[in-house]
Amino acid sequence: MNVIKLKSMLNEFYNEDIGDCDITGESLFSMADLGELTFISKQTGVFCGEMVIKEGYKLLDSEIEVTMLKQDGSVIESGEKVAIVKGSIQNLLKGERVILNLIQRMCGIASITAEAMKRVTGTSAKVSDTRKTLPGLRMLDKYAVLIGGGVNHRFGLYDTVMIKDNHISFVGSIGEAIKKVRKKIGHTVKIEVEIESKEQLLEAIEYKADIIMFDNCTPQEIQNWIDFVPDEIVTEASGNITLNNLNAYAKTGIQYISLGCLTHSVKAFDISARVKFN
Amino acid sequence: MNVIKLKSMLNEFYNEDIGDCDITGESLFSMADLGELTFISKQTGVFCGEMVIKEGYKLLDSEIEVTMLKQDGSVIESGEKVAIVKGSIQNLLKGERVILNLIQRMCGIASITAEAMKRVTGTSAKVSDTRKTLPGLRMLDKYAVLIGGGVNHRFGLYDTVMIKDNHISFVGSIGEAIKKVRKKIGHTVKIEVEIESKEQLLEAIEYKADIIMFDNCTPQEIQNWIDFVPDEIVTEASGNITLNNLNAYAKTGIQYISLGCLTHSVKAFDISARVKFN
Amino acid sequence: MNVIKLKSMLNEFYNEDIGDCDITGESLFSMADLGELTFISKQTGVFCGEMVIKEGYKLLDSEIEVTMLKQDGSVIESGEKVAIVKGSIQNLLKGERVILNLIQRMCGIASITAEAMKRVTGTSAKVSDTRKTLPGLRMLDKYAVLIGGGVNHRFGLYDTVMIKDNHISFVGSIGEAIKKVRKKIGHTVKIEVEIESKEQLLEAIEYKADIIMFDNCTPQEIQNWIDFVPDEIVTEASGNITLNNLNAYAKTGIQYISLGCLTHSVKAFDISARVKFN
Amino acid sequence: MNVIKLKSMLNEFYNEDIGDCDITGESLFSMADLGELTFISKQTGVFCGEMVIKEGYKLLDSEIEVTMLKQDGSVIESGEKVAIVKGSIQNLLKGERVILNLIQRMCGIASITAEAMKRVTGTSAKVSDTRKTLPGLRMLDKYAVLIGGGVNHRFGLYDTVMIKDNHISFVGSIGEAIKKVRKKIGHTVKIEVEIESKEQLLEAIEYKADIIMFDNCTPQEIQNWIDFVPDEIVTEASGNITLNNLNAYAKTGIQYISLGCLTHSVKAFDISARVKFN
Amino acid sequence: MNVIKLKSMLNEFYNEDIGDCDITGESLFSMADLGELTFISKQTGVFCGEMVIKEGYKLLDSEIEVTMLKQDGSVIESGEKVAIVKGSIQNLLKGERVILNLIQRMCGIASITAEAMKRVTGTSAKVSDTRKTLPGLRMLDKYAVLIGGGVNHRFGLYDTVMIKDNHISFVGSIGEAIKKVRKKIGHTVKIEVEIESKEQLLEAIEYKADIIMFDNCTPQEIQNWIDFVPDEIVTEASGNITLNNLNAYAKTGIQYISLGCLTHSVKAFDISARVKFN
Amino acid sequence: MNVIKLKSMLNEFYNEDIGDCDITGESLFSMADLGELTFISKQTGVFCGEMVIKEGYKLLDSEIEVTMLKQDGSVIESGEKVAIVKGSIQNLLKGERVILNLIQRMCGIASITAEAMKRVTGTSAKVSDTRKTLPGLRMLDKYAVLIGGGVNHRFGLYDTVMIKDNHISFVGSIGEAIKKVRKKIGHTVKIEVEIESKEQLLEAIEYKADIIMFDNCTPQEIQNWIDFVPDEIVTEASGNITLNNLNAYAKTGIQYISLGCLTHSVKAFDISARVKFN
Repeated sequence: MNVIKLKSMLNEFYNEDIGDCDITGESLFSMADLGELTFISKQTGVFCGEMVIKEGYKLLDSEIEVTMLKQDGSVIESGEKVAIVKGSIQNLLKGERVILNLIQRMCGIASITAEAMKRVTGTSAKVSDTRKTLPGLRMLDKYAVLIGGGVNHRFGLYDTVMIKDNHISFVGSIGEAIKKVRKKIGHTVKIEVEIESKEQLLEAIEYKADIIMFDNCTPQEIQNWIDFVPDEIVTEASGNITLNNLNAYAKTGIQYISLGCLTHSVKAFDISARVKFN
Repeated sequence: MNVIKLKSMLNEFYNEDIGDCDITGESLFSMADLGELTFISKQTGVFCGEMVIKEGYKLLDSEIEVTMLKQDGSVIESGEKVAIVKGSIQNLLKGERVILNLIQRMCGIASITAEAMKRVTGTSAKVSDTRKTLPGLRMLDKYAVLIGGGVNHRFGLYDTVMIKDNHISFVGSIGEAIKKVRKKIGHTVKIEVEIESKEQLLEAIEYKADIIMFDNCTPQEIQNWIDFVPDEIVTEASGNITLNNLNAYAKTGIQYISLGCLTHSVKAFDISARVKFN
Repeated sequence: MNVIKLKSMLNEFYNEDIGDCDITGESLFSMADLGELTFISKQTGVFCGEMVIKEGYKLLDSEIEVTMLKQDGSVIESGEKVAIVKGSIQNLLKGERVILNLIQRMCGIASITAEAMKRVTGTSAKVSDTRKTLPGLRMLDKYAVLIGGGVNHRFGLYDTVMIKDNHISFVGSIGEAIKKVRKKIGHTVKIEVEIESKEQLLEAIEYKADIIMFDNCTPQEIQNWIDFVPDEIVTEASGNITLNNLNAYAKTGIQYISLGCLTHSVKAFDISARVKFN
Repeated sequence: MNVIKLKSMLNEFYNEDIGDCDITGESLFSMADLGELTFISKQTGVFCGEMVIKEGYKLLDSEIEVTMLKQDGSVIESGEKVAIVKGSIQNLLKGERVILNLIQRMCGIASITAEAMKRVTGTSAKVSDTRKTLPGLRMLDKYAVLIGGGVNHRFGLYDTVMIKDNHISFVGSIGEAIKKVRKKIGHTVKIEVEIESKEQLLEAIEYKADIIMFDNCTPQEIQNWIDFVPDEIVTEASGNITLNNLNAYAKTGIQYISLGCLTHSVKAFDISARVKFN
Repeated sequence: MNVIKLKSMLNEFYNEDIGDCDITGESLFSMADLGELTFISKQTGVFCGEMVIKEGYKLLDSEIEVTMLKQDGSVIESGEKVAIVKGSIQNLLKGERVILNLIQRMCGIASITAEAMKRVTGTSAKVSDTRKTLPGLRMLDKYAVLIGGGVNHRFGLYDTVMIKDNHISFVGSIGEAIKKVRKKIGHTVKIEVEIESKEQLLEAIEYKADIIMFDNCTPQEIQNWIDFVPDEIVTEASGNITLNNLNAYAKTGIQYISLGCLTHSVKAFDISARVKFN
Repeated sequence: MNVIKLKSMLNEFYNEDIGDCDITGESLFSMADLGELTFISKQTGVFCGEMVIKEGYKLLDSEIEVTMLKQDGSVIESGEKVAIVKGSIQNLLKGERVILNLIQRMCGIASITAEAMKRVTGTSAKVSDTRKTLPGLRMLDKYAVLIGGGVNHRFGLYDTVMIKDNHISFVGSIGEAIKKVRKKIGHTVKIEVEIESKEQLLEAIEYKADIIMFDNCTPQEIQNWIDFVPDEIVTEASGNITLNNLNAYAKTGIQYISLGCLTHSVKAFDISARVKFN
């Protein structure tokens, strides 16, 4: 996590919510009114969001004290306290909504990722994310996948070559596409190729793709074809895979399964904030 | 919608996804390679995202031509085309993921809002959003609620007074809180008060709150109490209301029902992009 | 006041004034040269600018100590000290001009607002600002009005509906305009309508505007018409009202009087900085 | 004028005023509703703000057409049209307030500068501004002084050495201060020294200051002392000079008179916008 | 290249150079004065900077016409014209220095890279850059290496794992470090390990590093050890390699040679701008 | 140096290098792992970069302790320690590359400037920089020249008038150009004129330029002509001057010699970072 980037994000998010003032809180509390805000989980899952709570309140008011009772990756049960924050009640409430909105998403992502990891237990498959994250939140979305026990797929268009159906049909063949790309890229970048048929698979193997993604294939197809893949090439399945059919894919011997649903349709994890006054 | 703000948001979102380059696309396509990208709906719902597609591609490449086949608010069926975009294939693909990530969320919000509106048909209730939007995306989230037929609740801490349980318990009573706030705020701002009991309701009425929110009340409680509210005070229900129990609330005579689920747990609407080369 | 926003504003303002260096101060003082800078009022009025002095110096140099002798809203007499600031003389002088330029404006606004409030003493009228603030400074301008004893009108185009003559003449009538707006907006937003004649007034009442603004009306006109307005509608006068004729308007029974002159033509309040060396 | 900087300023200013939307205008007008907005002067003075109107509307909507009837520096009479702007009525109104707030200030500055220049007619004195501009607006404030016929003093701490009383008393003498500064600065930077007595004047002359500022001196003092100043040193008067006593200073033979009042207490110039619909 | 990012960079760079105005050009030219500016090479090398010239002038003035006579990657001889730019002479000169400063660096990098590539001709080695680029300019620095015929090493800390001596000595061994990293990272990221001895080399091979960097090794050492490396592991040499000893390294059979000197000590390529008036 | 500006620059530079995370360091070190990083010079020269090290690490982690062993302007020998930095090893390494890239450039500039100053010893000439700095780094480049013992030429187009050959040929003559500029500019700005012949020199003297730059003249030409220049006009030589011919120019009696090579082709100064673990 890049904390410098996190701070700018939090500054922007606060400005979005606070605008020129919190007209309610600034009318009712003086800066000297102190209190305590406790974040409490209302469901069971994996906690994620430590830095958001800590840096979020530090930015708003350097005198607020944050005590984390759970760390990123801790399993949290319904009713458990996550963090206690003490200081100016006006500032505790000013930051509450932004911080809740973020950590509810992050815990939601970490928890569904952990759930997905359970479904692949006993297989050699790992669960990975995609670029289907929410614009502006990719760093946090991907961090939450990591905390949930998954691994990160590429972060953007810039860090891994991904040859998809459109690229292939434009260039003419997988082999041509790999050759063309290889002339331009450096040695630190991997080439991943999407394949949809056995022919494409064999071509990707011949041209030594680093990663082969079985795109929209059935578990049966993958099982039939995967033994053609030599050890030094990584395998990945993607496309229409959900928690429900995940185990079937995991049993095929595939190494990575990437799931858009980890981040594109996140259910907010139920965490609430309870306030006490001094 | 503030288009100037939308443009800065899109610029940031592109930088997040593109970084220093699209290593795949820039290796495979020259800028002279032209093509056509069609956004196609894969499910039925309400479209939202016209400005994102138009401004998104204009920012990336002023020579790309966008033709919208659906407008914000159009009902779209699975299989229907939403927009056709023509120009440099490299830039068409560079923008694809960011734009899809945004419009899938916006269509998701518009569609669930439209669904919620159906459930209140025949009653006088309207559906409203909350501040449970994703940080950095509030303008688009709230716009999508509007397009889906809902209304917007306050945009942030700055535009409406919202006296909640924490405020009340700190100040001592609803009456004190309203009086204290009223001394500070101007005449253009409404005061909304959350009530949880009949006693609180009567106090909020006595002190002439502009809006009374029945917080975590049952439909039965609301029905029992709502006739105490004079015509000039607006009523709203909130807390644990979902699509499932929405109709029961709508039938109580309440005027507005605010639903966090419109924006805090959005299911991405299935839209895909199909590419053709010239 | 949103302190996070204030800090970004101050950073920008310092960059405007300092550029790449203070060539005089950096040539003459080392960072170890210490001193004391006292802000002293040269006229009588209402002080405003506490946060600007405190945050302004903290941003520039976290070791500078600020002692406020006056708080926002304090009446200050000519010759009175407002604040004493101790630390690196180089940084004390680096921040001086930016801070003076801001607080002289803020005290100017607070003081003229307090003066305006005096002129409405004994009536039920309150003084309000407008959107005629200086671009980039609205948060501070509006805050200063509040400190001077006035109330804030809407902060921008986003937080209150304001139906003006142009809107009315385009749509055809006040009634049509109110109906059209009401279909789009939520329940947390008030509708204000500008009226210029008795006919318009009655129409605005009929369609239940939340606020009626008597625009460019004489005190006599307002007095003649104001009794038509029911209790639940707020009244406001605006247009060509200055400190000179303010009392005449206040006596009409109007509730709010908005004055562009509070912020559009601010006279800098005379505060100076005196420096001592250790 | 740096147009690139102007555009970022305008973007920020629009975001301040528009926020997430113009709830009134976006409810009442569609983007296809066209109209015409005319800026009309309500008083006599010097126009300034051409670029603000042109770039301001271009940023908001590239299809809006701006026709300038007056140029920067044109004398405008009450009732005269300044510019006609045609296009989407929604966008015409969205930009109106920000643009008016800026050009009313700029015309105010240009006009009072022109007035000041009249008061020095027949003398060799020129009128100059100071750093008492509004934070965030210095580029526009100084540009308006130029358009009004004045000249610009230094733009910030970075472009001219200004040795003031505090610097002198810390270092010990004017001579020491000049020597110390001269060791650090380059040959493209001028050294200005504030003097308050004849002794200081003679010292500043001896050490070859480039500019000598007679600070808070009476016209009589200046007249008595100015002949000591050799031709190659520029003279400037400053401190408590207003339009009222300006002529007395101008007649002393001083070359430049800097006036804080040109920018620190600007009276908004009365310009209004009239709208017609197509 | 991310053009959206390039534009923000250019905006910042112009603000750095222009500040509030070009006092010379704005005093001497009106906006209507037209001219032509030709960029001419004064030495022989590889051109790079097409987008900087095109986007740079478009940002400054959308009416300026740019005609490129050379493309990125073209060999340019001393005396050859690179581009002709026509339009407002004031804006042609406003942009000249920023654009020259950038393209002189980019051509310098492209040309030294091309020179390095010549020195490895006939071997299987390719030349690569490092992270020793100038802060704020990495995108352009790396792009220029590509245009010069080299390949890009990782763009930052975020896109490739690089296990260096510090990491190894902290964790205890190469094997431990690779195992620890592998648990955290996804399948799209390569692991590069720096080795300084044969023992380290064998350990890196055993633990299947994706890339092995021979750090500060002599050509002789590399030649002795390189045959231990299996085909699927990429080899790279780095540390104290310059144009002078580059060929000796290339002949060892190494696949990539990374050179800090391509970007950390760039000699500006001599390009000048000649102006004609219409 | 403007520290507020330095901090924003460093924030941007970190984001460029770190992106969303340091995948290596964050995989291998916990935040509790402590260590010590020492910056050590590998060559002899002048140190520059104190603020970059101090502010750079403070921004990244406020608990890191920086101890400077050398100050800006200290002569450093090969092998000498420059600074010791203690704290979280993860953060020490996160900042290492950005800080090294900056201080290697700054020491490079300071050292070559010091070298140039040596070559003019015994003459009255001073060495000055130009605007040939790297975009985005001008503040630091110019600061390093100062630390190396040189002086700064103008910082941008905004702070000194520079009448060049293009301006002269457009306007018609040096005299006309000076007259035209003088009407527009204030008294705090100097006018520098480039001359290439004796005729131009005499014209520049006649019209009282503040600074005359002998552009692309030979030392002989300057020697022949320099006595025509009266005392109150500053002289400068520029164009094709390098360390090699610098002394010949210095002996002509010229006052300032500006050298593009101080900043346009900087050789990175060899400083490395050695790490120890606690």
